[in-house]
Amino acid sequence: MKQLLQQIEFIKEIDKIKYILRRTKLINSNRRENDAEHSWHLAVMAMILAEHANEPVDVLKVIKMVLIHDIVEIDTGDIFMFDTTRSHTNTDEERKAARRIFGMLPTAQAEELLALWEEFEAAESNEARFAKALDRLEPLLQNASNEGGTWDEYDVKYDREYRVQQQIADSSDLLWCYAEQLINDCVEQGILKK
Amino acid sequence: MKQLLQQIEFIKEIDKIKYILRRTKLINSNRRENDAEHSWHLAVMAMILAEHANEPVDVLKVIKMVLIHDIVEIDTGDIFMFDTTRSHTNTDEERKAARRIFGMLPTAQAEELLALWEEFEAAESNEARFAKALDRLEPLLQNASNEGGTWDEYDVKYDREYRVQQQIADSSDLLWCYAEQLINDCVEQGILKK
Repeated sequence: MKQLLQQIEFIKEIDKIKYILRRTKLINSNRRENDAEHSWHLAVMAMILAEHANEPVDVLKVIKMVLIHDIVEIDTGDIFMFDTTRSHTNTDEERKAARRIFGMLPTAQAEELLALWEEFEAAESNEARFAKALDRLEPLLQNASNEGGTWDEYDVKYDREYRVQQQIADSSDLLWCYAEQLINDCVEQGILKK
Repeated sequence: MKQLLQQIEFIKEIDKIKYILRRTKLINSNRRENDAEHSWHLAVMAMILAEHANEPVDVLKVIKMVLIHDIVEIDTGDIFMFDTTRSHTNTDEERKAARRIFGMLPTAQAEELLALWEEFEAAESNEARFAKALDRLEPLLQNASNEGGTWDEYDVKYDREYRVQQQIADSSDLLWCYAEQLINDCVEQGILKK
């Protein structure tokens, strides 16, 4: 029962992710997405799209990664892709948050989740690269549906968006083929500026 | 590419689940939870709590089930546990919604998700019973944190809540031990009336 009580405290704590707002907005919408909604969407995308990864991926591992990848933002707040003032990879602040929040769990589980989060951040394993690809693709779909969305709002131009999205090519030729085409369509529609 | 385009349409369609509000409110909060947030929370709970299932469960299957279990509500709206005017199990309306929405996917995947949803609704397999237990436990944690929450709002008394929660005992003695104790604590605190 002691382990379960620790787990319940963690489950209650991570409820706070539902208040962490991202910059991107829902599909065809003016309402900003929160981290719980975003993580849910990536998890379903992992279920549906895993077959398109170039290398076989452990789907359970990808899903676990995307479900927990933003939990650190409970302490750090949303870390926006196009924020030029902040580093995006494993800052001390994020590591501290990961240790505090995952550390609420029984030791073995805390270590498992911390390792999963580190693996996602490192973006080296097949699973982490595929999870990162999904994390790029979702806001692309959102911005494309919202007349440019955060591209327009934060003056993000084609070159920068293309570089960010190109990470998809690290794990799936087919998803990258789709994403590249969508980026080009957005340029043609005038909602992503060259 | 044709398959991927179908999958992308599905991924965009299910964004709508983020607007489906449940009756229950977030932990220590007055803000109602939506189905995407709820499904995310159950998926993380499945990761964390699967070890407490009485019978071994396929964690990936449980997670898939909880991720998609409420997608039908895009068409039917939220189906509230204590709504006395509506059936809760596999109504024609829900089946129609499942066929429409999962049917947007390539055939094999559509069939897989429909079968998962049917299995969840039937609550017979170990995985489905465990998923149902999580679906009970989350609103219990929420109501306990919100001075009774929907119990107070919809005049739900101890007997009815106890019967609903008892479904947890079908899959986990330990989770039921915790839940039963929490229900009794809520009665003692006067936030759940006998």
